[in-house]
Amino acid sequence: MKLLECVPNISEGRDQEKIAAMAEEVKRYRGVKLLDVSSDRDHHRSVFTFIGEPSSIKDAALLLALKAIELIDMRGHRGAHPRLGAVDVVPFVPIQGMEMEEVIELAHEFGKELGRKGIPVFFYEEAATCPERKDLPSIRKGEYEGLRDKLNDPRWKPDEGPDCFSSKSGATVVGARFPLVAYNVNLKTGDLALAKEIAKRIRFKDGGFPHVRAMGVDLEGKGMVQVSMNLTDYRVSNIPKVFEFIREEVLKSGVEIGESEIVGLIPLNVLEGIVQCYLKYPEFSIRQVIEQRILEFE
Amino acid sequence: MKLLECVPNISEGRDQEKIAAMAEEVKRYRGVKLLDVSSDRDHHRSVFTFIGEPSSIKDAALLLALKAIELIDMRGHRGAHPRLGAVDVVPFVPIQGMEMEEVIELAHEFGKELGRKGIPVFFYEEAATCPERKDLPSIRKGEYEGLRDKLNDPRWKPDEGPDCFSSKSGATVVGARFPLVAYNVNLKTGDLALAKEIAKRIRFKDGGFPHVRAMGVDLEGKGMVQVSMNLTDYRVSNIPKVFEFIREEVLKSGVEIGESEIVGLIPLNVLEGIVQCYLKYPEFSIRQVIEQRILEFE
Repeated sequence: MKLLECVPNISEGRDQEKIAAMAEEVKRYRGVKLLDVSSDRDHHRSVFTFIGEPSSIKDAALLLALKAIELIDMRGHRGAHPRLGAVDVVPFVPIQGMEMEEVIELAHEFGKELGRKGIPVFFYEEAATCPERKDLPSIRKGEYEGLRDKLNDPRWKPDEGPDCFSSKSGATVVGARFPLVAYNVNLKTGDLALAKEIAKRIRFKDGGFPHVRAMGVDLEGKGMVQVSMNLTDYRVSNIPKVFEFIREEVLKSGVEIGESEIVGLIPLNVLEGIVQCYLKYPEFSIRQVIEQRILEFE
Repeated sequence: MKLLECVPNISEGRDQEKIAAMAEEVKRYRGVKLLDVSSDRDHHRSVFTFIGEPSSIKDAALLLALKAIELIDMRGHRGAHPRLGAVDVVPFVPIQGMEMEEVIELAHEFGKELGRKGIPVFFYEEAATCPERKDLPSIRKGEYEGLRDKLNDPRWKPDEGPDCFSSKSGATVVGARFPLVAYNVNLKTGDLALAKEIAKRIRFKDGGFPHVRAMGVDLEGKGMVQVSMNLTDYRVSNIPKVFEFIREEVLKSGVEIGESEIVGLIPLNVLEGIVQCYLKYPEFSIRQVIEQRILEFE
């Protein structure tokens, strides 16, 4: 069974009617499941999360994008969140049974189709066509307001679509990335310096685990501190690896873990590694889970 | 989302055409998923595993039972496995979103409908109408060959259907039970006495954990011994409880756990308890798993 997720970030977070009309495009697509819509008035932005079989996901994403382009006029858009266009970012995320290469190809097809509709498209993350376009912030630098000038710079020729500025719609960033696991571990101490020190030791940037971003956070309400992490490839650095590292490190300072938490949704595959580790069961597979078998029927 | 499993044990394990015809009855039922068919020539018996929305499962089980009654003649049946009739045992198992009371009611309805077709029906396990009928072996004692006499005994008046013996079909045992987790822990030692001692301490019968059956087994090929368990209500005694107990107990004898394994399929809910325990995350819910959310759409 192949399962692909798409998480478009759209520059409309206030007009409920418009947001519902965009959601409707996804909902009415057979075989696609809209898991979540989160809108933020201050950001003036909505994030749609939907999942299903790859080619349906690509088609539903295109319908959603075209509806957003129809309904949104960037000329009046003011919000707290950085953005480059009406359809700001469209990331495709492999959940089950897909290689990244396949997702990149699909993201490129989506970008080509959106480009044909007159939208300048940049590819980012795994779908990037050059190293300078891998990071979203560098593509989005200057935002919608600086886009006209950016498009005049030959280094920022779009990967798909026209080179010229569309004042109504701006531009779109399309990408492929692994599912991100947002994972926090709370420490039974008020010592923020300890959380920051552990975060530093754990994050890849400072020589820690690959595909791990981490920071130390003060949880004043709880009287605890937190190591807040993003695991950007759980196949390489999964939850047990960081949890056990933190447990051992803080124990040296006589501190215990209070609790841990996963923020948002995770693929079932993430649990596979947890069972394998803690039950000394390296051969455990999510195919032993009844619900997984049910999904494989579809 | 409500998910019910049915695992009928049918007295035909040799004629592939007949087994396929019975499977076909389940397969063609919309919304029901046939996860497995296991046939055994020596036992002359097949076990069908299917899952879906409760009332569809009941109807599909009835179609399967009627096809078995049509195709099987018990007068010629010889097999290694004890049996009372063509449709020998029909257990209903709640997988998600169902209380046991609801499953018992559904098992009783199924038994009533099968009884109307002329089959004597006994209810067992959670669906039993009296304590003496709770255990399957006591209902099945004397088997098909002794059934005529058994039905003449007023203590063995069927719960549904006629009191008289049907030589072609025999009788059927219908029940409701929790999903059973078959779980084994292998010890890095050849000391079978240790495995047997641990099994004794762990099983409910001898004062151990509720809803746990256990025995010590020699794994000669591996040079290890095994504590082999059935967890008959994982909500009360789940994997981490028995795994950690075994780990601590064998450590006293300087023995380590080699590995552990789950036999067959488990509900996703079983993993909930594992994550909650090992990640100090008492609020973890399987609703945080993308695949679970997808299933809730149906």
